[in-house]
This record gives sequence, structure tokens and C-alpha cells, in this order.
Amino acid sequence: MTDFFRDIPKIRYEGPETENEFAFRHYNPDEVVMGKRMEDHLRFAVAYWHSFAWPGGDPFGGQTFERPWFGDGMALAKIKADVAFEMFDILGAPFFCFHDADARPEGANFAESRRNLEEIVDYFGEKMQTSRTRLLWGTANLFSDRRFMSGAATNPDPEVFAWSAATVKSCMDATMKLRGENYVLWGGREGYETLLNTDLGREAEQAGRFLSMVVDYKHKTGFKGAILIEPKPQEPSKHQYDYDVATVYGFLKRFGLEGEVKVNIEQGHAILAGHSFEHEIALAASLGIFGSIDMNRNDYQSGWDTDQFPNNAPEVTLAYYEILRAGGFTTGGTNFDAKIRRQSLEPEDLILAHVGGMDTCARALKSAAAMLSDGTLERLRAERYAGWDAPEARAMLKSDLASIAAAVEREGIDPQPRSGRQERLENLVNRFV
Amino acid sequence: MTDFFRDIPKIRYEGPETENEFAFRHYNPDEVVMGKRMEDHLRFAVAYWHSFAWPGGDPFGGQTFERPWFGDGMALAKIKADVAFEMFDILGAPFFCFHDADARPEGANFAESRRNLEEIVDYFGEKMQTSRTRLLWGTANLFSDRRFMSGAATNPDPEVFAWSAATVKSCMDATMKLRGENYVLWGGREGYETLLNTDLGREAEQAGRFLSMVVDYKHKTGFKGAILIEPKPQEPSKHQYDYDVATVYGFLKRFGLEGEVKVNIEQGHAILAGHSFEHEIALAASLGIFGSIDMNRNDYQSGWDTDQFPNNAPEVTLAYYEILRAGGFTTGGTNFDAKIRRQSLEPEDLILAHVGGMDTCARALKSAAAMLSDGTLERLRAERYAGWDAPEARAMLKSDLASIAAAVEREGIDPQPRSGRQERLENLVNRFV
Amino acid sequence: MTDFFRDIPKIRYEGPETENEFAFRHYNPDEVVMGKRMEDHLRFAVAYWHSFAWPGGDPFGGQTFERPWFGDGMALAKIKADVAFEMFDILGAPFFCFHDADARPEGANFAESRRNLEEIVDYFGEKMQTSRTRLLWGTANLFSDRRFMSGAATNPDPEVFAWSAATVKSCMDATMKLRGENYVLWGGREGYETLLNTDLGREAEQAGRFLSMVVDYKHKTGFKGAILIEPKPQEPSKHQYDYDVATVYGFLKRFGLEGEVKVNIEQGHAILAGHSFEHEIALAASLGIFGSIDMNRNDYQSGWDTDQFPNNAPEVTLAYYEILRAGGFTTGGTNFDAKIRRQSLEPEDLILAHVGGMDTCARALKSAAAMLSDGTLERLRAERYAGWDAPEARAMLKSDLASIAAAVEREGIDPQPRSGRQERLENLVNRFV
Amino acid sequence: MTDFFRDIPKIRYEGPETENEFAFRHYNPDEVVMGKRMEDHLRFAVAYWHSFAWPGGDPFGGQTFERPWFGDGMALAKIKADVAFEMFDILGAPFFCFHDADARPEGANFAESRRNLEEIVDYFGEKMQTSRTRLLWGTANLFSDRRFMSGAATNPDPEVFAWSAATVKSCMDATMKLRGENYVLWGGREGYETLLNTDLGREAEQAGRFLSMVVDYKHKTGFKGAILIEPKPQEPSKHQYDYDVATVYGFLKRFGLEGEVKVNIEQGHAILAGHSFEHEIALAASLGIFGSIDMNRNDYQSGWDTDQFPNNAPEVTLAYYEILRAGGFTTGGTNFDAKIRRQSLEPEDLILAHVGGMDTCARALKSAAAMLSDGTLERLRAERYAGWDAPEARAMLKSDLASIAAAVEREGIDPQPRSGRQERLENLVNRFV
Repeated sequence: MTDFFRDIPKIRYEGPETENEFAFRHYNPDEVVMGKRMEDHLRFAVAYWHSFAWPGGDPFGGQTFERPWFGDGMALAKIKADVAFEMFDILGAPFFCFHDADARPEGANFAESRRNLEEIVDYFGEKMQTSRTRLLWGTANLFSDRRFMSGAATNPDPEVFAWSAATVKSCMDATMKLRGENYVLWGGREGYETLLNTDLGREAEQAGRFLSMVVDYKHKTGFKGAILIEPKPQEPSKHQYDYDVATVYGFLKRFGLEGEVKVNIEQGHAILAGHSFEHEIALAASLGIFGSIDMNRNDYQSGWDTDQFPNNAPEVTLAYYEILRAGGFTTGGTNFDAKIRRQSLEPEDLILAHVGGMDTCARALKSAAAMLSDGTLERLRAERYAGWDAPEARAMLKSDLASIAAAVEREGIDPQPRSGRQERLENLVNRFV
Repeated sequence: MTDFFRDIPKIRYEGPETENEFAFRHYNPDEVVMGKRMEDHLRFAVAYWHSFAWPGGDPFGGQTFERPWFGDGMALAKIKADVAFEMFDILGAPFFCFHDADARPEGANFAESRRNLEEIVDYFGEKMQTSRTRLLWGTANLFSDRRFMSGAATNPDPEVFAWSAATVKSCMDATMKLRGENYVLWGGREGYETLLNTDLGREAEQAGRFLSMVVDYKHKTGFKGAILIEPKPQEPSKHQYDYDVATVYGFLKRFGLEGEVKVNIEQGHAILAGHSFEHEIALAASLGIFGSIDMNRNDYQSGWDTDQFPNNAPEVTLAYYEILRAGGFTTGGTNFDAKIRRQSLEPEDLILAHVGGMDTCARALKSAAAMLSDGTLERLRAERYAGWDAPEARAMLKSDLASIAAAVEREGIDPQPRSGRQERLENLVNRFV
Repeated sequence: MTDFFRDIPKIRYEGPETENEFAFRHYNPDEVVMGKRMEDHLRFAVAYWHSFAWPGGDPFGGQTFERPWFGDGMALAKIKADVAFEMFDILGAPFFCFHDADARPEGANFAESRRNLEEIVDYFGEKMQTSRTRLLWGTANLFSDRRFMSGAATNPDPEVFAWSAATVKSCMDATMKLRGENYVLWGGREGYETLLNTDLGREAEQAGRFLSMVVDYKHKTGFKGAILIEPKPQEPSKHQYDYDVATVYGFLKRFGLEGEVKVNIEQGHAILAGHSFEHEIALAASLGIFGSIDMNRNDYQSGWDTDQFPNNAPEVTLAYYEILRAGGFTTGGTNFDAKIRRQSLEPEDLILAHVGGMDTCARALKSAAAMLSDGTLERLRAERYAGWDAPEARAMLKSDLASIAAAVEREGIDPQPRSGRQERLENLVNRFV
Repeated sequence: MTDFFRDIPKIRYEGPETENEFAFRHYNPDEVVMGKRMEDHLRFAVAYWHSFAWPGGDPFGGQTFERPWFGDGMALAKIKADVAFEMFDILGAPFFCFHDADARPEGANFAESRRNLEEIVDYFGEKMQTSRTRLLWGTANLFSDRRFMSGAATNPDPEVFAWSAATVKSCMDATMKLRGENYVLWGGREGYETLLNTDLGREAEQAGRFLSMVVDYKHKTGFKGAILIEPKPQEPSKHQYDYDVATVYGFLKRFGLEGEVKVNIEQGHAILAGHSFEHEIALAASLGIFGSIDMNRNDYQSGWDTDQFPNNAPEVTLAYYEILRAGGFTTGGTNFDAKIRRQSLEPEDLILAHVGGMDTCARALKSAAAMLSDGTLERLRAERYAGWDAPEARAMLKSDLASIAAAVEREGIDPQPRSGRQERLENLVNRFV
């Protein structure tokens, strides 16, 4: 045991009335909601990068956090892992997620980095034998090192493609070794800074091949988890290819991968692309590619990725409502891709941020489940489209313009608008949140 | 002849030094650029709606323009047409574009509206016999009337679908009668105000069928023009399904229409979706769906569609550069989907706005052509990716993760970043604008 | 009695568990919160314009609502008033607000419009004798008519200034006659479309004089209400002079009016200016110019004024928290400057929208009051600055750079950062919402 | 001489037709424009921080640049200075600007940092004896170190205030020693991350006192330069107090400093605040607080400070037009607060970026001067307001609401709107750019 979280107790459910900051007020893992334990619904994961690797810098300032494990070398990397698993335990987190670069020391060359990763993965594995925390997903950091500055799979230099492919292989291997349930790709540098030096056609071709190789490797190795792409419109790139769910869908269709790859949707990325989080989830579900979520909160008024912990339960409710409508998570889960503010220096800030986030999600899940169980909203939605269930309407969909035009004149069709009832529906939602 | 543009002469090219406001300083229709007349490159079209049907209102104020043709009835509609063709002549505009609702009086029912459209189309036809202005594209207004408030093809009410289908048929018929070169669909109400009352799956299915019917009708009637979708992310809807080029591409792929339908890209809509105009053009070209453009300018700092006339030649140059790289327009052209400000009350404001817009585009075309002819930019782009032309790089693309990973370790691959040269390229562009 | 709201009962408080849509679940006017009746805290007002004058248009579509009072003439204006007071009664709204143009028919000239206003004001006066609804504020519509297209007080044409001044006088007279508690100025056209034709210096001078005349008239007539400016950054203008609270403060200081004029802060306008609603309230309070609020909700992802009814209680809580911290409203109140969506066609949509909005505010008020009564947040805030309460710190503020610099070196001052505790504070807020 | 810019020649003016990348095509320092040498108009400065101190990191990636002077200690700091002055010489830059932290190694305590600054300032002084490059302004970095994470002057901890005051003193001393022409304050951390832990009243009071001390120190030391505040709305803070020019003006008025302090306006900061660059300049000029500019370009579609080099001459023309209208720079100048992209690794990228930026500004200056000399735009502007020059209009401004209202009715005033001529004016501008 390190002493990093020295005086902080294991967080337990105490109910909404507790004034204990170190307790859950809403998240009660064993509470059954719509026939499933809350823990099994939410499938919370802690993100290794934000909580253990980020130094607190921003574009105008450097490190603010002072962590005993900051620095180089395997020994410190293992202290970091020790602290991480202690935090998982304090929170009762069922899952975590990590990038290679969060966890292992960078080596002098690819092989050494790969061996370092294997060593830390083994260390994780040992810890997981006595922990109940499992791996939700693994991923590769193909954006921080300067070698990726012009892209990973979409780099103009084939050597970077090669390096990236090798890295993904090593991270998929790590994910499999730790029995991860998904493998995620976020293409932070798959895009461009200026169109003037960019060949969109070539880069798309490279990206398509890269993803196909990932899918092939999954099948070859027998990995049972899902392959997930995480959309984001921009930042760090001026334009990122995996802009949003709709764009990723088009990309998957183009390369015949829509049955193989799903999406990991982040609230902040949805917002930056001009969408609500629930839109992106509902759209992915309707396209059959919903996989998992990165839960956080973006400041709507800051045009960059703020990655704050969620705290607005009514808003988060709408996201879980779409997830429940889609049948809930299978391999996916709720990964807190969220970071404490750089002024939040204390170890307990890390814990409290997660407690608050987990409680917000739990509250949202319960509201969403109540709303879905109530059924009014779904009934009203179905009623709104009921006209389309009539045989003549279904027939019209199989018809043609000329026949329809003839019918419109013949029958004197004169459609009458009906209220969309938006405010009524919003009031209805407010009954549950 | 009406006397609306009483004292305004036909606009002629007088060269950059002229101080005559009613002359082109850059647009010289017969000047040959890269082997083609400037007029044939740019294929300018005047938009009937903004110039002749818009009363000058905005969300906080009503009509500002006082036009002799405002009001109801066929007689006024014909005066409007007279003025429109006088303006086409003054500008020497080779094309125009219109919606049904811009041109014909609304009837008491569908059949009457359809007959009114036919009458005005005949009137257009007569005028076109003595005019050199042709029809770039026709389209249907499926968004202004209250019947479309909840969508056209995607409406929860099948009767609105029917009305919309009949309307599109009548507008395609009109387009064909006037030998229009394209038919455009903009789905201003194909989207939603609130996800709470919306069934994304049903609405997509309806939209897919609708578009398929349009394509079928094209083939059945032998229409040789292109069917074009115009993307826009939102406004009037909170969310519009044809969000941007990438989204439309995914939609087309989903319904197997990617070989049948192209896009009409608007500068302002690109901006509202978070993209540069040139990005959307380049992307469409790389996906094989580039069709035509709606030229205008959106205020980057107003979050709605400002539809201003373009005036920034360097910016517009980048758009035409991508068009030229893609081989230029075939059936498409440059439609000024732009409106004078509501304070620009005078008839001459209408003319001067178009003169300024046409000059800006002409200047941009010449700069783009010079830049492409010079070849440096394309050479530098190709050099940046030259590594991928090597056989081993091509082979790697057909390879797999494990083989690549082995090679990276075996060969000690260690990619070295190379300058992206963005500022140098921007300086290069500035040599031509 | 009209039959517009035929079957809709008077809305009464039934508590959070009710499933009756036509009941308050949170707003209980007589419930005492922090020593004051909830009604007296919130001081709700209905906005005449959105609910009774707006036809449902948007930039891409026309009228959707069909109201029996739409049309010209005094008789219809009185039916509109009848319906309005019926709605005030159904809702138990203690206040309303109106512009001249919402309420009276436009006359053929200024004098006739003024007389029309007087007639409708008399009619309001009669109705108010049997109603418990009072006037929160009156205002003049100096933006819809084409004569204001280039500004009202800031117009390049002195005749428009004159017309505007005369109009404001008539509206202040009306406000006084109806014992309104405030008079509001929103300068929707006080700004510019293009800087190219604008003289900032002259326009500011005109605006300063105009506002001074308003203040003088207040004093001359003995009006006891507050004069309020409503900030907005843009829309309809490209740039509006009363951009935000800080800008208005600078303007007031410039013309020596900071003791005479306060602000009416709108959520949507705050958002469009890049601020949170609570920021604008807290800033105005700290500058001594907080007056009243226009309550609504802007879609964070639509770059125009969406004027939706509020529905997010945690967000609204932060606004009322700042209002309570500032001592609550005096002459001000909560005006719903909010409109139902244009698809919400039914009379009951109007009622339900207000019920939902009032409940959201009531819930927020109670949360805010509980949080303030609890005191933890304020205690933590005070503790954060406690160092400044030390005499040496206060002395330093009266000192000078050289003395401080000497002390820093002499005393070896080395400040140590302390956690900002943002997540902990957000969790604390979530205990109350 | 270092060999960093080894093969790069001194940049000279070769005229628009040159194809030499290492030449000016528009910037001809000795060319006389409106009676003044171009160099004396533009007063270009190189920013030490971006060009010599920034490692190329972004929020998702670390250092990309490899500079021989990166690292700790005075020896490397002096190599950095050597390279900087070599670049100034290559560019013929008449000015530079720097923060303390850009130039000197950080010491173990305040006194050591201060002495390090003095040593490097002496080194600068020596170099300036043989250089023609002078200091446009100095400034203090009060935002990068973790001690400033919660503010500098507005910090809740008085010790940080003290440290900041001492730092500003040392930087003002340095500026005076190097005969700097201005001293700039940018409050990157003067704002807040969350309103929940912030006392706006206290922080404003602290900021007001801090600025007053700076002004007092200026007077006490006899510094003849201008004190400048640089507005920015947010980033790194969620909200920054010096939001925009109007906000700074209100702050200065509040503390009686409007005659003592001016503004340094940055294009990117203007954009982030929702304004055009020319708006902020024109506003500052009209308020009498225009000082200097930070020239760069912000991507309109990236919601953070992109600090790119300007490349759009028509846009920059509008900025210089307002500067010329305001009489041009006095102590101020054109500081390139712009950085090369992190992929621009080569020493020549640094040079070419400045060459392109200087050429863009030179072109803009010439266009602006031609437009002002032509006089049409100013004549049209004056004509638009001509009605206000009439004695009755001037008298009305001194009148009162009641008298004006009486006159409106008596004289039957009925103002008629006149065209704002926006497109015509935009065409006019395009004659000059």
C-alpha cells in the first residue's frame, strides 16, 4: 500500500441524505434497476491517463500536480500502477482503461517500449488477480509523441504507419492478455492542420487499410471484444477524419467495416461536433454501431475539449435514456474520460471528482430507467408516427413519385400540421429527473 | 421592359482599373483560363428566391424591401419574372435557379399550385427563348409552409410525405421542361427540433425511400441532369440530417445511392458545420460526389446562415482551387445563394452585390488557375507522400499488423518527423491571390 | 371569457408526485422560502410578445400558429388582451410585460399609434382592476418596423431618433399609467451590420444622450420604477452595442449613468455573449447594477436566440443562487422571455410551457435557498480569500510595487498553490439540486 | 554568430514578381506611404516567446521542435538571445517583445530569478548596441508557473499578489533599461475556472489596485512608455476579466485609469470574444484607449487561440484602415504574437512565417492607405450621418423626450429608411485590396 490516498476510506453508498463527502449518495452498485444491478448497467471505468499520467498542464501553463510517481523508469511506473489500483479499490470501480503511453516508460526504441509495456501489463495482471477491477478497453497513444505530429495511419511517411501498426498490435496484445472487453482507436492526429499539404484520398485509403488490418488481427487472434472508433471533430488537428458518428459510419461503409467496428462516443467530442451527446448515441444505435461511451462534460462555451466530470443529472439522463432504449451496454461501459481541474491539487480531489461523476450517472440511470418504465414518452413517440403504420402508408413507401402525385390530386390530400408537443415532453422528462 | 432597373446599364468588363461601379473589374466572360472561357468555368447562376422573393425580414423585423411585384396573384408573379430576366440580362448571367414557391402564386390546393407552376414555367420558357440565361437547377420549397413544419419526407404524417413527393415531381417536371442541368434537394426541415419526439430510424428510412424515388423518376423520365443534395447542419431545424458532405455520403452509401446522387455545397453551410468551404469541396471530390456549389459568405461570428455575397478573394480562391483540381464543373455551377442585406433597399444594390460577387469569384478563379498551372503546390503535396509510392510501402498496405510489427523491430524503424511547411505553403498561395 | 383555453383549469400546486400535467409540482406561491413567499421571490411575468403576438415564423418558414386575434384593428387587439389576461389567471402569474407593438394596432402615423396605445393601455387598466396580475415592465419595440432597420437612438437619421424618443415617452407613460415597476430598453438595432458605414463615436454619443433623456424623464415624471438596459451581443445586428453586462457598465460610467440605470439580464443573451447566466448576474450584482432577469434557455449549440422555456433545474439554480446572494429582486422579477416552439400549435402548449418553466424556477429557487442557508459554499469561498483579511495583506493593497518587491526578497516569499476544490464544490451543489 | 539560420540570407524587398521565397514582395521599409516610411507605420516586432521559447507542444502532444538552446541555465539563455538577434537582423525587424520567463532561466527563488533577468537584460542591452532592433514592449509572465494557477493580482492568496507585483516591477525595470516603448499586461489567469469558488468583488478590487500601482510606478520612475492591457475573453481561464476592449474600458473607468492605460489588441483575442479585429481597434480608438496590436490570425473554426501568422490581406486591410483612421501608431506597433505550426520544424519555417506575415501586413497597409487617401469611403460615411450636422438635429440632442414627442406629432415626422449600401461599400473596399 502506498500512502497516497492515506486517509481516504473506501467509498460506500449512504443514500441521498448523507453529508459525508466520501460516500455515494446515488450509486448503489447492487441496487437493481430494470432487472439488472446498477453496477452492471453503468460499467464504470477509470481512465488511467487523466487520473495518473496528466501533469496538470494547459496551453498556457505547465505542471501543477506533484505526484510521487512522476518521472521516468519502471519503478515509478509501478508505483503509479499501485496508486491506480488503490483508487480503483476505493471507488469500487469495476473497470479501467489505459493507453500504452500512460502506463509504461517510453523505451529507447520500439522493441524496448514494447517490452516495457509487456512488463507493466504483467504487473497489471498480477494486481488484477486480487482486484475486482477489470479492463474495459485498451488503446494506443498515437498522438503525443512528435513522430505522430502529421498523423499515425494517415501519415505521409510509411514508416509512421508501420510504427503505428506495430504499436496497435502491441496494445491489442496487451488488451487481450488482460482480458479487455474492447479495443478503442482514437485518431487524434488522423486529420490535418492545413488542406494545402494534404491528400485526402491517400489518407482515407491508408486509414481504411489500417482499420481493416486491426479487424483482421482481431479475427486472427480470436479476440472477442469489440473494436471501437472514437469520433472527434478537431483538436489537436484542425480537422479530424472521424468527425462524428455519421462520418464514421460513412467511413465504415466505404471500407465494408460497418459490421465489424462500433463507436465509442464521448460527450465532449459530440458537443464539439455540434451535436448533443444523446443525439450521437441515438444515431449510433439506429445505425447499429453503438458500442461504448466516454463520459465527461464539455463546457459549452469553451471551444476545446474540457473533459470535466459530469455533474448535470438531467442532461446525463438523456444519454442513458438512449442507451437503455438501445438495450444497454454489452461489451461497452461508462469510461470517465474526465480530468480534475489543474487547480485541484489534492489526492482527495481525484476521489471526489469520481464520486461526484458516478453519483451523477447513477442518478441519471435511475431517472432514465423510470422514464422508460413509465412508457409515456415512448407511447407518445409511437403515436406521433402512427399514421405510418397504416397499410396504405407502407404501400406508398414502396410506390413512386408519379403515383403519389396522382393520388395527392385525386384524393385532394391536404395535410394538417399537428403539435410537436415539445414543451409537454420536456415537462414529462422533468417528472423523472 | 419594366422600369425597375431603370438607369442601370448592362454590366461589361472594363478591367481592374475602372472606377465605374457598374462594370466588372475581373469577370471577363470570354477570357480564356486554362483552356476554357471564364464564363464556362464559373457558370454563374442567380438565385430567384433571395433576389426576387425575399422581403428583407429577419427574426426581429419584417419587410424592408418594397418591390412592385410583392403580393399575390399570377400577374405580379409575371412582373417578378420580367424583372428577374432583366436582371439576368444586365448581369449577363448564364444561369438562374428557383424553387416552385419563389416563382408561382400558392394555389388553394395542390392541383392549383401545380397548375400555377406550370403557367409560370411556360412564361419562363417564353422568356428563355430570347434570353441567353439557362436554368442551372430547379428545386422544391419543402420548408416554408406550415405543413412542412415537422419535416417533408421525414414527416411523421404520411400525407406530408405524399405532398412532398408530388411537389418534387412537379418541380422535376418543371426543371426538365426548362432543360435544367441539375435538380437539387435541400432538406431544411428534414431533421428535428427535439429528439424527444423523433424516431431517427423511421425518418432515415423515409428519407432513403424518398430519395430513391427521385432517382427512379430521373431514370424513368430520362432526365440527364444530376440529382444533388445540399448539406446543412442545422437551421431552421435544431439538427438536420444532411449535416455535411461526409454525413450525406454515409446516407447515400446506406441506401446504395452513392453512384446516383451528388452534393451541392454551400459556403455558409460548410462553415456552420465546422468545416471550411474548400474542405467540403475537396472531400466531395475525393468521394466522387462533387456536383455544384452555392456561393456565398457566412459571417464566421454569427451562428446562423447569413448568406452574404462573397467578397474575400483569397478565401474563395481556395474553393475554386479544389474545384479545378477536381476537373471543374460538369453539370454544376456557381449559384449565388446570397442575399443583399435588408438595409440595401435600392434596385442598384441588387446589381452591385452580384457584380461584386462575380468579380470576387472571377479573381479567385484566375488565382486558382495560376496556382494550379504553376504546379508548385501540387508538386510539394506529391513529394510529401512520395514515400508511399515505393513498392515496399504499397506492399505494407496489403500486409497485416503482425508482419509490420515484426518488420519494425527487425529493421529498427525509427521514423523522423519532417516539416509540414504550412507557412511556406501559405506564402506560396499568397503569391497568386 | 373567450373560449381559447376552453378546457384548461386554473393551475394549482399539487406537489412533486402529481401526474396531472396541469398542476404545479414545485411552484407553491405561498410556500415560504428564506422568510419570503415563493411568489414574492420569483415574481414571475408572462411576456406578451412571445405568447400572444408571435406567429410562429422562423427565417425559413412563416406563420404556424392560428390565433383568433391575429390580424389588424383594435377589436382583435382587445380579444388578444382578453386571452392574455385569461392566461395570466390560469397560471396565477403575478406580472406581465409588453412592448407597445405587441399590444396596440399600428396607426397610420405616430399620433395614431400613440392613441391606439393609450386605448389598449386603458383596456389593460380596466382588466387589471379585476386581475391580480400587475405590470413588471413596459418597453418600446424599436426594432421590428423598417424605419428602425439602421438603429433607433443610434440611427444616422435624426428623424428616427426623434420617432424613437417619442415612442419611448409614450411607452414610459403607458408603464406609469399601469403602475409598472420597471421600464426596459433593449437595443436590438443599436449596433451595426457593417463597420464600413458606421461612425462608432457619433452613435455612442447619440445613445448616451438618449438614455440620459430617459433618465431625466423618469425623474421629471416621478416614476419610481427602475430603468433597465437589456444586454445582447448580436442578432439581429451583426454587432450590438449593449453587448453584455460589462459593456453596459462601461457605457453607463462613460455617461455618468451608473447610479441611474440597471440591467435586465437574459439567459440566452448571456450565452450568446460567451458567458454563463450566473456570471452575468453575479457581475451585475458586484457592480451594483443588477435589476431583473429575462428567464429562458438558449440552445448552446444554436448560434441564435432560441428563447426556449427553461427546463434544467440545476443550471437555473446557479442563477437564483446569485440572485439570492445579491439580496433577491427589488423592483425586478423573472420574466419568461421564452416562446413555445413553432410546432407547438395547441393552446395547451402555451400553458404547459409556462407551467414547466415556473416549476423549473421554483425548484431552482428552493435548491438555491437551501444551498445558501446551508452556508457551506459561502464559508468555503470566504476561507479561500481569508489571507486577504489579514492586516498586512490589506496594508499591501495600499502599498506600492517597490515596497512589495523589497518585501518579497527580504522575506523570501514563496507562495504555495492550494487546491481550488472545483469538483468538491460541484458535488456540494449537487447535494442541493 | 550561431549557425542556426546558417544558409538564410538577410531578407530584402524584391517586389511582387519575385519568386524568391526569402525576399519581401510587399514590405519595403523605406517606401513612403501617406508621408511616412512603411517601417515607421508598421513598427513590426518579433515575439520572443513563440519563436524562441515555445517547444511545439499542444494539449495532446509534447515538444516537436529541437532547438540547441532548449534546456536550463544562463549559457543556453544567451545562445537563445544570440539566435533571436540573428533572426531580428535577417528580418530587419525594428522591434521585439519579451516576457521575463521567455528570456531568463528560472531561479531558485524570486531574487535569483530577478538577478537572472537583470543579467539577460544586460546581455540584450549589449546586443542592442550593435543591432537596430529596439524593444517595443516588455511584459511579465504571470500565468505559466503553477504559483499563478489561481490568478496573479486576483489570486486568493496575497503572497501571489506580492510575487506578481514584485515581478512586474522587475519587468518594468527591465523594459525601462532597454528603453522599451510600452509595458504590457496580459492577465491570462486573472479570471476564474469556476464561479463557485470566486469572489468577483474582491478580485476586481485587487486588480484595480494592482493596475494603479503599475501606473504609479510608471510615474515615479518617469517611464515615458504607455501602459497597455491586452484583452482576452477566456483561455486559459474559463472566464477572463479583461474580456474585450469594452470590458477593459469599463474597468479603467471604474478605477479612474482611463487616461493612464491603453489597450494592446490581438486579432485572435478579438475573434474569441466574438468581435472582428477592426471592431476592437475602432472601438478603442473611439474611446481614446487605442495603443498597440498583437498581429496574428485565429482560425475562426477552432475555439482556442491558434496564433497563426496573418495571411489574408483583405482582412488585415480593415484593421490597418482603422489604425490609420485613428492616426496610426504612436508608441504602439505590430507585434507578431504568432507561432509557426508545431509541424513546421525547420529554422527556415520561422523565417518564412515572418516574411509572409510582414508581407501580408505591408500589402494591407498600402491598401488601407490607398482607400483612406481615395476618401470615398469616409465621404460616404459622413454623408450617411449628415442629417445630424443640421442645427435642429444638434439641438434635439440637447432636448428632452417630451419636447421631441411633441415635435414628432406636430410636424408629422415620418422617417424614411435609406439604403445602408453595404455591398456597394464592400465592392469599394475590394478596389483597394
